[in-house]
Amino acid sequence: MTTTSTHETEIVADPRVPLVRIVREFDAPRAKVFRAHTDPELIVKWLGPRDLTMRIDHYDCRTGGSYRYLHSRNDEEYGFHGCFHEVRPDEVIVQTFTFEGYPDSVALERLVLEDIGNGRTRLTATSLVDSFESRDAFLASGMETGINEGYERLDELLGA
Amino acid sequence: MTTTSTHETEIVADPRVPLVRIVREFDAPRAKVFRAHTDPELIVKWLGPRDLTMRIDHYDCRTGGSYRYLHSRNDEEYGFHGCFHEVRPDEVIVQTFTFEGYPDSVALERLVLEDIGNGRTRLTATSLVDSFESRDAFLASGMETGINEGYERLDELLGA
Repeated sequence: MTTTSTHETEIVADPRVPLVRIVREFDAPRAKVFRAHTDPELIVKWLGPRDLTMRIDHYDCRTGGSYRYLHSRNDEEYGFHGCFHEVRPDEVIVQTFTFEGYPDSVALERLVLEDIGNGRTRLTATSLVDSFESRDAFLASGMETGINEGYERLDELLGA
Repeated sequence: MTTTSTHETEIVADPRVPLVRIVREFDAPRAKVFRAHTDPELIVKWLGPRDLTMRIDHYDCRTGGSYRYLHSRNDEEYGFHGCFHEVRPDEVIVQTFTFEGYPDSVALERLVLEDIGNGRTRLTATSLVDSFESRDAFLASGMETGINEGYERLDELLGA
């Protein structure tokens, strides 16, 4: 495949458990998509919406490592942090996630990358929290914009 | 209070989300109960049932740290590992947890310690997983024995 078209991002709320599932395909091999999720010099180029500036405090993406980054816009700054439970090269990243505006709210996130042939990759990202209220507030927060824009920026980075 | 009696351990399956909640009181101040959860030299003395031997691979209990330990009985050895999302002294520990026999199953755990007066502490430990099947299999696994015996051993350690 040589197309560089942008793919649809599927965002689904699980009906049984307080989990969000995001599925997205990329026209790039798995190792390249994985590296864009683990190398801080690449992450800073695509993670989040276009109108925010990302600054990494630390990003030690290995089993047992941790991360913290900040998104800023004008005078506002938003911090995010977590730890990496497991990082299995090219396949899986399991990590925790907290937006520091709600420091007691913690999500357990799992990223799975599948090789779907022809140098293409399917990404499935799940985010589990401890209540449906938190999950639904997250879905209602306008998060799709950040996710869609982030993945469009990732398409650009992977195509570059 | 000077009683050293063993308290009941309450283990509850949440009806709405795949979470287990454990509540237990201890006749010891919060700082002491916290330290028994963070100092590897103390943890090794109480965590788990009496008939298993615990060996710590590493236990770096701080925000962004990680741990791995092994329980053994005769020729069998069981590994457990995770990362520490947040460690707030005397109050809260948020961590991930995997039994290495089921390496793709990850729990998000939160320990909260409350000072309930007279040098006593209430511990609330929650464990969140991504399906009711996993949660119910955990509950059916005979985990109460390990938890009850572990907390009885912790009573003994705190009283010593």
